[in-house]
Amino acid sequence: MIYLDNAGTMPPPKEAGSEFKEFNGLSDNFFNPSATYRGGILVKNRIDAVRNDLAGALRVPAEAVFFTSGATEANNWIFSGAVKNKKYGVVISAGEHASVYEPAMYLKNAGFDVRVAALTGQGTVDRADFLSKLDENTGLISLIHVSNETGAVNDLAALSGLARAICPKAVFHADGVQALGKLPLDLSASGLDAYSFSGHKVGAFKGIGGLYVKPGVSIRPFMLGGGQESGMRSGTENVPGILSFGRAFAAFSRQAAENASEIRGNFAYLVDRLSAIEGVSVAGDPANNAGYILTLLIAGVRAEVLQTLLYDKGVAVGRGAACSSKKPGNRILEAMGHGKKEIEGALRLSLSPFTKREALKRAATAIEESILTMRGYRIG
Amino acid sequence: MIYLDNAGTMPPPKEAGSEFKEFNGLSDNFFNPSATYRGGILVKNRIDAVRNDLAGALRVPAEAVFFTSGATEANNWIFSGAVKNKKYGVVISAGEHASVYEPAMYLKNAGFDVRVAALTGQGTVDRADFLSKLDENTGLISLIHVSNETGAVNDLAALSGLARAICPKAVFHADGVQALGKLPLDLSASGLDAYSFSGHKVGAFKGIGGLYVKPGVSIRPFMLGGGQESGMRSGTENVPGILSFGRAFAAFSRQAAENASEIRGNFAYLVDRLSAIEGVSVAGDPANNAGYILTLLIAGVRAEVLQTLLYDKGVAVGRGAACSSKKPGNRILEAMGHGKKEIEGALRLSLSPFTKREALKRAATAIEESILTMRGYRIG
Repeated sequence: MIYLDNAGTMPPPKEAGSEFKEFNGLSDNFFNPSATYRGGILVKNRIDAVRNDLAGALRVPAEAVFFTSGATEANNWIFSGAVKNKKYGVVISAGEHASVYEPAMYLKNAGFDVRVAALTGQGTVDRADFLSKLDENTGLISLIHVSNETGAVNDLAALSGLARAICPKAVFHADGVQALGKLPLDLSASGLDAYSFSGHKVGAFKGIGGLYVKPGVSIRPFMLGGGQESGMRSGTENVPGILSFGRAFAAFSRQAAENASEIRGNFAYLVDRLSAIEGVSVAGDPANNAGYILTLLIAGVRAEVLQTLLYDKGVAVGRGAACSSKKPGNRILEAMGHGKKEIEGALRLSLSPFTKREALKRAATAIEESILTMRGYRIG
Repeated sequence: MIYLDNAGTMPPPKEAGSEFKEFNGLSDNFFNPSATYRGGILVKNRIDAVRNDLAGALRVPAEAVFFTSGATEANNWIFSGAVKNKKYGVVISAGEHASVYEPAMYLKNAGFDVRVAALTGQGTVDRADFLSKLDENTGLISLIHVSNETGAVNDLAALSGLARAICPKAVFHADGVQALGKLPLDLSASGLDAYSFSGHKVGAFKGIGGLYVKPGVSIRPFMLGGGQESGMRSGTENVPGILSFGRAFAAFSRQAAENASEIRGNFAYLVDRLSAIEGVSVAGDPANNAGYILTLLIAGVRAEVLQTLLYDKGVAVGRGAACSSKKPGNRILEAMGHGKKEIEGALRLSLSPFTKREALKRAATAIEESILTMRGYRIG
């Protein structure tokens, strides 16, 4: 095939990245999905197959799912798309990811009516406070489904039912990044109008995600141009990202479904083993946790140092969202009532459906030993 | 390495995509560039190395280059970022890509002062008409550097110099998608304030691009959240896209520089060979063309049919931007003064620095034979 198309969108030379061969050269997946000949149509069909798979898992129509560059874009989109002027009030919780919290604060600073519902000590939104923030002018509600800090699960079906009674026309959006593939989801039955998700949280390439928008809900397009994504999100599609999302999601959700009890057992093991260490407690309620994120509050230890120690022992752990790791403190643990000292010792462990019990045992041992070392004990 | 970090950003299982191994598993490039330990820092450094390479080629400081999901995002960003209220007038040309034209039309429909400068028959902006559209309220100027439809080159240094005299505070943005790696660029000397570019036009993965914003020019961030890209464009970085951009750009620009005369010769060959066919002319002025895009106007032939015929002969060609290929007509050829009939026969050929003369000879023969076949001649 001699390729003289697409204004220079081109197969790169071997030197440029033979590693990427699936999407380069004149492989099946190279063509521009907007091209009207066979190669382009094939790629378009593969993209739509991924859209179908995701929509099926969310129990929504495929045409309601739009690909984005990630969940940050999806979350920003719902703010720019649903809040059309200052008559649209906004309600979020104190437990939102930065990609919801910061757009909300931007609107607040610009004079919009933005209200922030409190968190309980367990990391979920305080129901009474949340309902008190709603009124007939509320135009957008955005709540996180599963907390990226603690794993705490908000009961969205119940909350959306209660909210509907107060502000039936509000767009109810949830940030589902930590729920996709992990919790059973039926968005059509949930009462939600919009839902954000991310590819790399289920093993896809970084740089791909999506937004579900319930048919009939009025959201402005996020980017204008060539009319891709049904005119809602223009721009040449991220073909490698979307195809990687499809494959990773299939493998992830199959594993999560087939090994549900083992995964629950792994989480319980970590909770039991680590909270048995003196001066270590779990943030939030392990009984209301999606089972993939566990934040430990470790007395007498700076998590920053512990993280480095563990990395050198071959255990990569976090301490709060990586994307806000350069900011001091932890807005969400603070909203749960934890003090500065406690937050300094907050370590976050993230699991996957593929995490093996044996790895968790070794990690738990490394964590325990490192804590004791840092507290001044000598090991071995 | 046991990976328990990043709220479930995970290495996918082998089944999910061993093809993507460079960015998966626990390869060097897997980690989240925001993570504060060694793996994350390494990835962050690799991203910044690509930023440095691009900035070096554009002759701008590295901190002035921001990665985006593509040029459509970069172009949308400059509109949402620079046009702060209705006091900011906007001037574009009739030759802009849809990702500039549609945001401008959106603002126009919302009551903003948006003016569209005419094109000459050669596909460049009409200088006198452009200058007549500017005034002291002009806040944003956006012109395409090299036309994605015809390859016509706007003389941005001259145009920005003239514009400065009328509206010194306007942000002067150019869409450089078809120029990056192809034309020598010195943005610091060009008088430009902002410049959009795309990865897949130099052989990178689809889904990556960037925006240069001159230091000191005030542009609002595009997406808010974790504060990536110096707080200007939040969201976990598209690591595969960025690294593919780095490698592809290096190979592309080296090839373009080392084979400049051969590439010019290839373009001249195509122009000569194809415009010699009866009833075939070139859109625009081949002498003012970046040398990578050639649009033919073919009398008595529907380009849609010709494109399919050629695809079946192993030659993939375009007919106007793929991303607007579903819209009838061609806004840009119309603005150059071409009629409906001519536009129906418009075929676009795109070259790369790696295109071989031999392939062009075969393509030209296939094009000529197909045209003759379509016109009713019998071949062979």
